[in-house]
Amino acid sequence: MSDIGVTVKKNVDFSEWYVEVILKSGLADYAPVKGCMIIREDAYAVWEKIQEILNKKIKATGHRNVYFPMFIPEGFLKKEAEHFAGFTPEVAWITQGGDTVLEEKLAIRPTSETIMYATFAKWIRSWRDLPIKINQWCNIVRWETKATKLFLRTREFLWQEGHTAHATSEEAEAEVMYALGEYKDIMENYLAIPVLIGVKSESEKFAGALYTTALEAIMPDGKALQMGTSHNLGQNFGKVFDIKFIGEDEKDHYVWQTSWGITTRLIGAMVMVHGDDKGLIMPPKVAPVHVVIVPIPYKGAEPEAIASKAKEIAEALRAKGLSVVLDDRNEYTPGWKFNQWELKGVPIRIEIGPRDLKAQQVMMVRRDNGQKTPVKEQDVPATVEKLLDDIQANMFAKAKALLQEKTTSVQTYEEFKSVIAGKGGFAKAAWCGNADCEAKIKEETGATIRVIPFVKEEPKTGCIYCGGKAKEIAYFARSY
Amino acid sequence: MSDIGVTVKKNVDFSEWYVEVILKSGLADYAPVKGCMIIREDAYAVWEKIQEILNKKIKATGHRNVYFPMFIPEGFLKKEAEHFAGFTPEVAWITQGGDTVLEEKLAIRPTSETIMYATFAKWIRSWRDLPIKINQWCNIVRWETKATKLFLRTREFLWQEGHTAHATSEEAEAEVMYALGEYKDIMENYLAIPVLIGVKSESEKFAGALYTTALEAIMPDGKALQMGTSHNLGQNFGKVFDIKFIGEDEKDHYVWQTSWGITTRLIGAMVMVHGDDKGLIMPPKVAPVHVVIVPIPYKGAEPEAIASKAKEIAEALRAKGLSVVLDDRNEYTPGWKFNQWELKGVPIRIEIGPRDLKAQQVMMVRRDNGQKTPVKEQDVPATVEKLLDDIQANMFAKAKALLQEKTTSVQTYEEFKSVIAGKGGFAKAAWCGNADCEAKIKEETGATIRVIPFVKEEPKTGCIYCGGKAKEIAYFARSY
Repeated sequence: MSDIGVTVKKNVDFSEWYVEVILKSGLADYAPVKGCMIIREDAYAVWEKIQEILNKKIKATGHRNVYFPMFIPEGFLKKEAEHFAGFTPEVAWITQGGDTVLEEKLAIRPTSETIMYATFAKWIRSWRDLPIKINQWCNIVRWETKATKLFLRTREFLWQEGHTAHATSEEAEAEVMYALGEYKDIMENYLAIPVLIGVKSESEKFAGALYTTALEAIMPDGKALQMGTSHNLGQNFGKVFDIKFIGEDEKDHYVWQTSWGITTRLIGAMVMVHGDDKGLIMPPKVAPVHVVIVPIPYKGAEPEAIASKAKEIAEALRAKGLSVVLDDRNEYTPGWKFNQWELKGVPIRIEIGPRDLKAQQVMMVRRDNGQKTPVKEQDVPATVEKLLDDIQANMFAKAKALLQEKTTSVQTYEEFKSVIAGKGGFAKAAWCGNADCEAKIKEETGATIRVIPFVKEEPKTGCIYCGGKAKEIAYFARSY
Repeated sequence: MSDIGVTVKKNVDFSEWYVEVILKSGLADYAPVKGCMIIREDAYAVWEKIQEILNKKIKATGHRNVYFPMFIPEGFLKKEAEHFAGFTPEVAWITQGGDTVLEEKLAIRPTSETIMYATFAKWIRSWRDLPIKINQWCNIVRWETKATKLFLRTREFLWQEGHTAHATSEEAEAEVMYALGEYKDIMENYLAIPVLIGVKSESEKFAGALYTTALEAIMPDGKALQMGTSHNLGQNFGKVFDIKFIGEDEKDHYVWQTSWGITTRLIGAMVMVHGDDKGLIMPPKVAPVHVVIVPIPYKGAEPEAIASKAKEIAEALRAKGLSVVLDDRNEYTPGWKFNQWELKGVPIRIEIGPRDLKAQQVMMVRRDNGQKTPVKEQDVPATVEKLLDDIQANMFAKAKALLQEKTTSVQTYEEFKSVIAGKGGFAKAAWCGNADCEAKIKEETGATIRVIPFVKEEPKTGCIYCGGKAKEIAYFARSY
């Protein structure tokens, strides 16, 4: 059993536990190339669910998917100076094609603003061409020099990037909030991870943006994880790439733009927030498998009758649109199977043994809390559907409790430091709005401003660092 | 009208026509980086349909999607000598990450056998771990030096690559044919393009394969286009990457492998085969939009009544699961709209004018043959569904007739040359099986063996080139 089970406790060595759960559950693997990973079957299936959910949302609101080249000429990246400075330290460069050394080296996209907007300038002539609302699912490369971490920091990852161009600032602002809202729905109502939303400080915003909004979650080790961002690019790129349109007023205007993205790191967040000492726990709404059925054929009992009952139940559940695995492999024991499917985080396990057969029932086991209940055969489909909803709700409630527990209002810098160095999580503190204080806090505690909430609270103290007049309340934390 | 319409006739300058149709319909655009393209909204939507169809098929047969890194260390590519020789001339190399020159340069995947199979060696221990059946949708880079062509030859393109490992040769053979069969179904029954299937000659097979099977179609200019391939890799890669398993016989065995792929070039084939002088014609089963409704509000007539009738019809069609655009823009005339939607290849156009409203009917126009028929309002949904089927069938029949017209049995080399240099298409000819004859034919005529059919015909002449004893009938053609 120990060869497949998780050997590290989540609350003993969180970081080791994380890696072990991912590798042993088969969610991902290290790649034979440095800093990269292999996204395996179950993780990719979660990503496909996220794609399906987001595609449905954004297509219904007039966005369409496209694909732009991943090569970006160096000259393009350089056009927006701030953007270039933000990304070039971690760009991978193609310098050779076949046997030929390239005249201009090509970046592998660290993000696609520049290559897309160079083209927007060509596509947009008149107000009739607006808005442009496109999105692309693709791979992204950022040549990390820090230690890489499965899903959270790898040199290549997958993401989606929405890019829009609008005639007015108001439309762009609405779009930024639209993307943020859809992301929040996916994180909270599908991945069961509560998030804080708000604006990034100037120091933390996207390189080239007017402002950046973000969704932040707290991991069980007290570190914050940026779950997604939605940027208002204002007219910055429009001016640099000369994206102008003739308005209904027959005058020239620069477009207003937004970009927004979520990545495969969401899968890492799901592992961290929900997993336990037995392995993964998959939120039912994104689980690749909802139910595993394990027949328990004692010797001497009727294996055929159990097998056929198991099949019947599997079919009844599949008819409800559920994803079911009937694990009838002979080469493994039921105990081994229980461990394996718990490791993989399947929300519900159904066991059928000789006694259950006789009693016309099954045993149903919840992955999230281990509760085991006998359920009458005819009630199985309805009970499974109800249980999946319960599990989803329970997982979110647990994660919400974690977020609350890990959020502390602090009044003094001493308190601030003790929270950050101690239980971690968000320290809610008053801030004067000065980047110097923010930088000092980062230097001294490792904590950064994760988000300044949209709903402003009145600061009751002076700036947590300098004591000067507070501008607003910000959420500080150490982060991944 | 001429600013948006196609100005080149398909049968006058096929190559120019192809480019103009793609650019003007908005299917794709040139990228601001050499040899690359932008896959725009409608083309990406067709690709998403292809993904949806193939995913459904392969998942139902136990394949699962994954994602491997796109970076391949040079050493990996070199392991299989034949494979390396086949791909390195056109590999793009990353030599620099951030400011650091890499110790070992990294190839951007031209295909993923080597990186995947290095990992298979780690995953596979026992017969219980087999088969492995995975697939990945991703971008691929081949640094083409020949002139690039939208969809057909670009330095980056999108594809899917299936990779499987099996315990027996028989299973691998069955898998090769399975993939080929699913591809044929997609090409013929969705894209409405008939294909020839068979085996590639030794000279034309995939670098590193035991043998390659392929699907080939004929384009209207008489050139063949390889639509997809499915390779039996035998134990070649297994031996090089040491992918062994302990069998039920408790002995060590090398695995048997397959790989198979289709790419975004299918979209190019769809344009070539079906398009006409007005633009694209989308096969209904992959069309991003099935029906466009254009209200025709004459002055003085009741525009509200027409608008509300148009909406009602759109809703009735959407309720059937159809994709409908109601083009009620005021800034364009009906004539302009007709041209634009014809250019984009929408299968059915519905016009509603004041006379139609009075007669409780609509005008329904087929894109494939231009037929215009009045249809009673209450019959619209059923008629549209029937028409879409008719259009799909008619498009396939037309393409089938093209294939037949462009397939010629030839008895002499003179005849062979005159077919290849003249009307083009497939020349069916007897071949001795000797690579020298194949090479000479290529040198002298530009034609290669596209495929040797699975169903063998008895050669009635000697080898078309040397006159020696013929081994089999092969299909020769010039190709893209």
